[in-house]
Amino acid sequence: MSASHPLPPIVLLTDFGTQDAYVGMLKGVIQRTCPGAPMIDLTHAIPPQDIRQAAFVLWTAYRYFPAGSVFLAVVDPGVGSERRPVAIEAGGFRFVGPDNGVFDEVLAELGDWQGVAIDPAVIALPEGLTATFHGRDLFAPAAARLLAGEPLAALGASLETLVTLKPARFEVTDLTIEGEIILIDHFGNGISSIGACRWQADGTLRLEPRFHPDLQPLTLNPDRVRVTVARYHLPRIARTYAEVEPGHPIALISSSGQLEIAVNQGSAQSHLDLAPGSRITIHRD
Amino acid sequence: MSASHPLPPIVLLTDFGTQDAYVGMLKGVIQRTCPGAPMIDLTHAIPPQDIRQAAFVLWTAYRYFPAGSVFLAVVDPGVGSERRPVAIEAGGFRFVGPDNGVFDEVLAELGDWQGVAIDPAVIALPEGLTATFHGRDLFAPAAARLLAGEPLAALGASLETLVTLKPARFEVTDLTIEGEIILIDHFGNGISSIGACRWQADGTLRLEPRFHPDLQPLTLNPDRVRVTVARYHLPRIARTYAEVEPGHPIALISSSGQLEIAVNQGSAQSHLDLAPGSRITIHRD
Amino acid sequence: MSASHPLPPIVLLTDFGTQDAYVGMLKGVIQRTCPGAPMIDLTHAIPPQDIRQAAFVLWTAYRYFPAGSVFLAVVDPGVGSERRPVAIEAGGFRFVGPDNGVFDEVLAELGDWQGVAIDPAVIALPEGLTATFHGRDLFAPAAARLLAGEPLAALGASLETLVTLKPARFEVTDLTIEGEIILIDHFGNGISSIGACRWQADGTLRLEPRFHPDLQPLTLNPDRVRVTVARYHLPRIARTYAEVEPGHPIALISSSGQLEIAVNQGSAQSHLDLAPGSRITIHRD
Repeated sequence: MSASHPLPPIVLLTDFGTQDAYVGMLKGVIQRTCPGAPMIDLTHAIPPQDIRQAAFVLWTAYRYFPAGSVFLAVVDPGVGSERRPVAIEAGGFRFVGPDNGVFDEVLAELGDWQGVAIDPAVIALPEGLTATFHGRDLFAPAAARLLAGEPLAALGASLETLVTLKPARFEVTDLTIEGEIILIDHFGNGISSIGACRWQADGTLRLEPRFHPDLQPLTLNPDRVRVTVARYHLPRIARTYAEVEPGHPIALISSSGQLEIAVNQGSAQSHLDLAPGSRITIHRD
Repeated sequence: MSASHPLPPIVLLTDFGTQDAYVGMLKGVIQRTCPGAPMIDLTHAIPPQDIRQAAFVLWTAYRYFPAGSVFLAVVDPGVGSERRPVAIEAGGFRFVGPDNGVFDEVLAELGDWQGVAIDPAVIALPEGLTATFHGRDLFAPAAARLLAGEPLAALGASLETLVTLKPARFEVTDLTIEGEIILIDHFGNGISSIGACRWQADGTLRLEPRFHPDLQPLTLNPDRVRVTVARYHLPRIARTYAEVEPGHPIALISSSGQLEIAVNQGSAQSHLDLAPGSRITIHRD
Repeated sequence: MSASHPLPPIVLLTDFGTQDAYVGMLKGVIQRTCPGAPMIDLTHAIPPQDIRQAAFVLWTAYRYFPAGSVFLAVVDPGVGSERRPVAIEAGGFRFVGPDNGVFDEVLAELGDWQGVAIDPAVIALPEGLTATFHGRDLFAPAAARLLAGEPLAALGASLETLVTLKPARFEVTDLTIEGEIILIDHFGNGISSIGACRWQADGTLRLEPRFHPDLQPLTLNPDRVRVTVARYHLPRIARTYAEVEPGHPIALISSSGQLEIAVNQGSAQSHLDLAPGSRITIHRD
């Protein structure tokens, strides 16, 4: 690649935190393998071993990255056991990590994919493969070799199926849509499993259930629904935080298209006692 | 730009934290818009919606970056309301963010500036403009387009005035200089509103009040002032932490030129019970 | 350098945290001094002024970076006092920071080194040298000038000796190997001073004492040792977390080759009440 056609980035998503040198070691290995590789941190604050949250966060973000980006996702409770290391291509992106469902949401959206089981004998570092840190010893070099131009097939034998995740609660009845809080963000906003929602030109909300191809899209009148979460009842779904006074709770659509509970200029987590798993319901009556 | 003349960086300053994918999404958008754009994190740990602290932190840091750097500051409690998105040029730097005072301290120092109100119809992502995440949908693409070489005028119509902040406490009498703690840093040091101070060759301190063009510069003898903060009295202003024993409090001049309260090899925050807003006084008698 | 031969990175290791703009300022200075310099964060979460932990973390990581990498380590409790600023070359890597032992573990491994005492009169920023932030004013420009191609000798006069650290506890008797926990990582794993350990093809463990050239290497049968730590007795040394049920404690070899105490899918720190300094013993009887 020339300077006028820079490489796309390797995008890192882990549960390593940033206090230790673990992320730095991944990056060192990437630079040894593909010098000059651009690298972007998506987050390293996935709760330890929380594959479901990693899968959701990756789904919210991947679409904003350049074509050809390589997503290196290391949330790997099964490191050292039988779970397979995989590399996948779909929708013009590349994905490298353990076969434990972390790519499930992205692949459900992108549809067609091809993948390989990474062969440690081919890919592992010259230092060898430790039993506890495949991120450094296997996944980082695999991602860097893809970015450097090696084809997927050079990394290992192709595979036909991947491990899948059980989806978060999402149930539709005649009168209600039920879900759960799946993520509390830095601002204390609660992001729910209800989505994807998109505002329509006529002021209605269109809800196209994610990962539920069996469910029909729904149209909601945001002023004629109630939202209940924890012990709170919210009279409508709003467009912006500023539609309520500072300190007041509000239901709105997150920037990722999910139903979100927030407190204007405050924290819904602390004000409303929200947590991952909290039940949330839209009443359509 | 060729490899031998690299682009200056886009420098990110937000209150997003780093646990979510929000910062990563900004970076993805920047790379889609200006492939290969260098990016540096200034901080993402501004307290949520604390415009004043963001303005101060940006002022302490901008001067250390290369000419042409684009500062992307997203601390935006008014997202989705009427506040204007702006792009500004001053002193050879560029600034992109909400018009809420976040650039106030920098522009007070740099003087002449020109700016535009960013036009969402021109700049927003093809995905559209959500009501809650203008950092991703509007500010990041605007910053990337400036870095890629687009002129300010391509982003929107020029503007003549900007929102300003009320300055932090800073009062001078014959006998005292009064201020407040405006920031507690990672080490527990308290950085005050009293500055900018600079050591002179003769061992005195010259104080040129920031953002108070009405006030005359003062000269202080560091050994003949007392500093009071919380319930503590400090007998002088020192040059280095090492001038007191480990565990003891000390008043000195921060690396940004502000009066600072520290504890040598300890935390002034916990030892002295400091917090943003704590009153601090220099007695000149 | 052309795009096809990118510069190696400057790798940053500090105790600055990431809430303030301190790290960002280092990076701005680096870019002003060596435009386009690649930069990688190793960690900024070294406990404030903990030179020993910084030395250990640097040792675990440096080997994974490209030849020519410049490690900029700023853990500097003596800033503003007499301690020397130094720049060192060893094993094809470069190291810049205070002369306080932070490079001790790396240099013990690499052996031959050459170094200089950085001359502030030559290297400090045009803005001058503050008494409290040599990371920004001295070490960052020194690292950037090395990366840009200046020879070590351009930075100051050569030096023959460096400050050394007292090593962590590591004692071998006929029946026991005694050490201490030196680091609790993000997952709550306790990393000990006992190492470096390497699995052998025959299933035994080879222990080559780090920084104890006086001690002979040992061979251990992992199934015939007991490990005691805090009030717990672990019957063997395992290879992977998955060898015990989730929630159970386990002794294994860390990815850096040190004896490690973990809890499968949990935190040894909270389950076993581990802390830096906790005594750990291998019984060979």
